[in-house]
Amino acid sequence: MSVPIRIVLIDTSHPGNIGAVARAMKNMAIEDLVLVRPKDFPSEEATARASGAEDVLQRARVVQTLDEAIADCSLVTGATARTRMHYWKVFDAREAAGRLLQHTATAGTAPAALLFGSERFGLTNEELTRCNWLIRIPANPEYESLNLSQAVQVLCYELYQARGTTITPPEREAPPATAKEMQYLFEHLEEVLAQVQFLDRTQSGDHLMGRLRRLFSRAELDRNEMNILRGFLTAVQQRRRTAGDKA
Amino acid sequence: MSVPIRIVLIDTSHPGNIGAVARAMKNMAIEDLVLVRPKDFPSEEATARASGAEDVLQRARVVQTLDEAIADCSLVTGATARTRMHYWKVFDAREAAGRLLQHTATAGTAPAALLFGSERFGLTNEELTRCNWLIRIPANPEYESLNLSQAVQVLCYELYQARGTTITPPEREAPPATAKEMQYLFEHLEEVLAQVQFLDRTQSGDHLMGRLRRLFSRAELDRNEMNILRGFLTAVQQRRRTAGDKA
Repeated sequence: MSVPIRIVLIDTSHPGNIGAVARAMKNMAIEDLVLVRPKDFPSEEATARASGAEDVLQRARVVQTLDEAIADCSLVTGATARTRMHYWKVFDAREAAGRLLQHTATAGTAPAALLFGSERFGLTNEELTRCNWLIRIPANPEYESLNLSQAVQVLCYELYQARGTTITPPEREAPPATAKEMQYLFEHLEEVLAQVQFLDRTQSGDHLMGRLRRLFSRAELDRNEMNILRGFLTAVQQRRRTAGDKA
Repeated sequence: MSVPIRIVLIDTSHPGNIGAVARAMKNMAIEDLVLVRPKDFPSEEATARASGAEDVLQRARVVQTLDEAIADCSLVTGATARTRMHYWKVFDAREAAGRLLQHTATAGTAPAALLFGSERFGLTNEELTRCNWLIRIPANPEYESLNLSQAVQVLCYELYQARGTTITPPEREAPPATAKEMQYLFEHLEEVLAQVQFLDRTQSGDHLMGRLRRLFSRAELDRNEMNILRGFLTAVQQRRRTAGDKA
């Protein structure tokens, strides 16, 4: 009954929210919780609010960077309350749940992650660049932002509902690339961009890399595709080295 | 946009839950809240947790009996976590939301009520007798009982969904790349692949290009992104030409 879905809470301020999230997850049979830089954890308040889901808190992993939290994940999605998100695909909660389950059905044991940013600011632009796509909970346009644990509850509820209806997913040729493999790809790409002096043409290298990250994240690469791109980058580097001989 | 749905909380112990309920309701554009014998209300904790939905708390009516709370209602339903409810019809959250909306569409201004019992015991048998039918939120059979405010959130969310609200799609920064522009991109890419002698490593160039086409098509590039990739390919070509000078 368990599905490889990981809830990742980033920079959570209120320990009560962490406890409430653990309970919301367990209610919907999702138990993989990772906390990135929680302000106050473990804490009595978190334990009190977990109320029967203390086991989820006890098994929760605490890490210092988002990249550690998602290194082994085959898909990374983020919850957002913003209505205008350029660059990323945004699915509403129900459709997102269906897509997440379809993904996990073919991704082996590599989990799919749902990222939740801090209570006040949500996901930062830097955190968003780690996402393949985003999830929005349809809500009152005049008061859109759900409490953190409520947002987790709605999404875990939709995941639970979606498990009732199984869709036969398309078969994959290769497993999805993990977040760590994608990170290596981006580092390699950045290196080549510098070598061919492409970075110079924009105001800031970060801006360009952000766009390229989003573009390739959106494509949800499998391992073969990731390897092809790495191979291409390596070929560019080798040809540069030998270009003097052959040109 | 407002629908005549009333949330009725009976014998609520924790003021924080009342505040969280107000927020959950307002997030889903439901604002009629009635409190039956709240243990501690008004309270600072409720106001703090309402966080932007204080207006719902301020307008909340406090009464001493359930019958006062539902006197003007045209339908009364109750949330239950019990799996075996003899006597009553029990619908799951999604179906219940549809039925509630269908009801209100024909009931004029008389509201339909959703009753929530105390945090510890839920609705009493006496309270259940006021209900036309019951609502159950599908959940982990081993840990079924949601926090009060979470249960309200899920039901209000389902009511919001049932209203058939559509998400405004995110605005784009640039128009999508046309098929013709994508074709130029692929031709350019193929040219560079040949120049860096990357094609040779696979059995057939077509196969590789097919994969790369699929990958970039999946990403649904906009014109800016397409231009960045073209610019990168051009930079690779220029650097190759000048690599002899600089290496």
